[in-house]
Amino acid sequence: MNTPRQDGFRMPGEFEPHAGCWMLFPERTDVWRGNAKPAQETFAAVATAIAQFEPVTVCASQAMWQTARDLLPDNVRVLEISSNDAWMRDCGPTFVVNDAGEVRGVDWEFNAWGGDLGGLYADWSQDNLVAHKVLDAVGAKRYKSDFVCEGGGIHVDGEGTLISTRSCLLNKNRNPDLSETEVNQLLAEYLGVDKVIWLDVEGVDETDGHIDAILAFVRPGVVLLAWTDQTHMYEYQECRDVYAQLQDVTDAKGRKLEIIKFPIADLPPTTTEEVADIVQSDDVYPREANEPVFGGYINFYIANGGIVVPQFGVETDEEAIDILTEVFPDRKVVGVPGGREISMGGGNIHCITQQQPAGKGTLR
Amino acid sequence: MNTPRQDGFRMPGEFEPHAGCWMLFPERTDVWRGNAKPAQETFAAVATAIAQFEPVTVCASQAMWQTARDLLPDNVRVLEISSNDAWMRDCGPTFVVNDAGEVRGVDWEFNAWGGDLGGLYADWSQDNLVAHKVLDAVGAKRYKSDFVCEGGGIHVDGEGTLISTRSCLLNKNRNPDLSETEVNQLLAEYLGVDKVIWLDVEGVDETDGHIDAILAFVRPGVVLLAWTDQTHMYEYQECRDVYAQLQDVTDAKGRKLEIIKFPIADLPPTTTEEVADIVQSDDVYPREANEPVFGGYINFYIANGGIVVPQFGVETDEEAIDILTEVFPDRKVVGVPGGREISMGGGNIHCITQQQPAGKGTLR
Repeated sequence: MNTPRQDGFRMPGEFEPHAGCWMLFPERTDVWRGNAKPAQETFAAVATAIAQFEPVTVCASQAMWQTARDLLPDNVRVLEISSNDAWMRDCGPTFVVNDAGEVRGVDWEFNAWGGDLGGLYADWSQDNLVAHKVLDAVGAKRYKSDFVCEGGGIHVDGEGTLISTRSCLLNKNRNPDLSETEVNQLLAEYLGVDKVIWLDVEGVDETDGHIDAILAFVRPGVVLLAWTDQTHMYEYQECRDVYAQLQDVTDAKGRKLEIIKFPIADLPPTTTEEVADIVQSDDVYPREANEPVFGGYINFYIANGGIVVPQFGVETDEEAIDILTEVFPDRKVVGVPGGREISMGGGNIHCITQQQPAGKGTLR
Repeated sequence: MNTPRQDGFRMPGEFEPHAGCWMLFPERTDVWRGNAKPAQETFAAVATAIAQFEPVTVCASQAMWQTARDLLPDNVRVLEISSNDAWMRDCGPTFVVNDAGEVRGVDWEFNAWGGDLGGLYADWSQDNLVAHKVLDAVGAKRYKSDFVCEGGGIHVDGEGTLISTRSCLLNKNRNPDLSETEVNQLLAEYLGVDKVIWLDVEGVDETDGHIDAILAFVRPGVVLLAWTDQTHMYEYQECRDVYAQLQDVTDAKGRKLEIIKFPIADLPPTTTEEVADIVQSDDVYPREANEPVFGGYINFYIANGGIVVPQFGVETDEEAIDILTEVFPDRKVVGVPGGREISMGGGNIHCITQQQPAGKGTLR
């Protein structure tokens, strides 16, 4: 079977036109507190916000379908698709397009961010079927890859450049038998990219350093970089390290990258009260008190004509919206309260969404 | 909320153009023998046959999705939708259309063919969500009705006439508090029909006398009537009773009905061997040896440009195909072997399918 590149397909930038957005519905009570109700309400608010810009489909298990249907507005579609948790960015397909406007999808291997070496839960079999089910639902041709990859580990500019982190895709808990050169080749073949920019970060978070917690493309040649001047924050040193590395690189078109500093909310760690009603389970990475909570405005979603960004109820909320409004002058920026709820689960709006590019032949 | 009729919608005849066909995937081992494998293979053969004429979606549970995906050809879509058994005709939506070509759907109440008074299994909660899930998947507006009805209990000519049986829809195990007049009114409002032709049959089968085991519209004014001259067959008397009743009626347009006699396969009853590996369960109507097996060619499906009809490996198989070829000159008639397997579960090809009419605004 050909690769997407051989067939003339490439992964478009998130800022290119969408057919719609896919999400999952949070359910597991050993990750999400309060019987997952607060998270469900926040996910519903995110879906509702995105649905003002483009069609949204939320996928819920048999057990949760009616709950999701009752919670979501009529203009959000609810499909029954099972999962092990709720991170569509990472277990969903990566869509690719060709010049004729046809849309297809890559179905990566998914191992819950590390498999037997640091995977966040013991069973990821349902997550690993999500991409196939989504592609079947939309009628998009599927490229199955054995490469272990998550959507949150890659950002592309749609013009041949991909940015990722060595700590994630080159981690021995993902693809232990592949060299950097081999991974470059795989990404080139499956996403149609010409150059991979590898960043070195510590990658001590649960995802081993997902790029979508670090930066985001505004358009080819321009990135927003999560940044803080607060010396007590973990990201203080990391954002400087990344900034330095980005100074030295050019993209696939030979351009230097324009870097726009973008705030990170300074959030207090998880409280005893917040984690008190998370069900304890041996099958999952424990959610404990005094753990850092990522204030990731950078984990926003680009919709058709819109930006949907988490809000944390702190003073940097407004600054994040102001910068997004300035750098995306043709899009309406919408903040969704409750960002802390998603962050406590391990990600934010970008992590729980996956765009389906506009194109032909994908809707039945 | 308005009814479909108030909004200008009517149920089209099955012979009108389709967008596609919906099916479920058999799974329960207390209904289907051999761990449901023979039934799954027969359903797959039906889906494959229909898919040569129009898009087919097969809905399977989480547990069965991969099995269904592996068994079905690429041109058949597999969606994850749970059910309690596999009769899409009866628990699926009844689609309606308007003159502008918009498609919407009626979501009837479903009680497993009799609820607490003769329902075939104890829990039909998932079946009762299928119509809603299908309508959400296709993006069709939903009319929810509290009326207990199954698609197999109604046949329409698309020009104002509906044929049903009193033993089914007027049964106290379906709608105990509604009079015939009230049911006529409900059918008029939800399906846009002007006249209901009620037949009296014994209705001793599991469905209490579904009309789709008795006759089928070829086009407005013309019906095929399941018929046998074999005096030992149960249907010998019933088909004569129905024939007599049909002599006396006119349809909504004032036409007498043209009646074409159509064979019923004379099949031996279930054998001890056939039922030996059906799992025994208190939760389900028992499948025992020496039960009649319905030879229901009449339970065929009308596709775009095609007819898909069960075959039973008996001499009437060819006669059924010849008659269908004659009365549907513009459609290719395809026989699917293994009809006995579906009949042993309680129905046939019409019972396991549900057409989605062609139209606008139904595909996302």
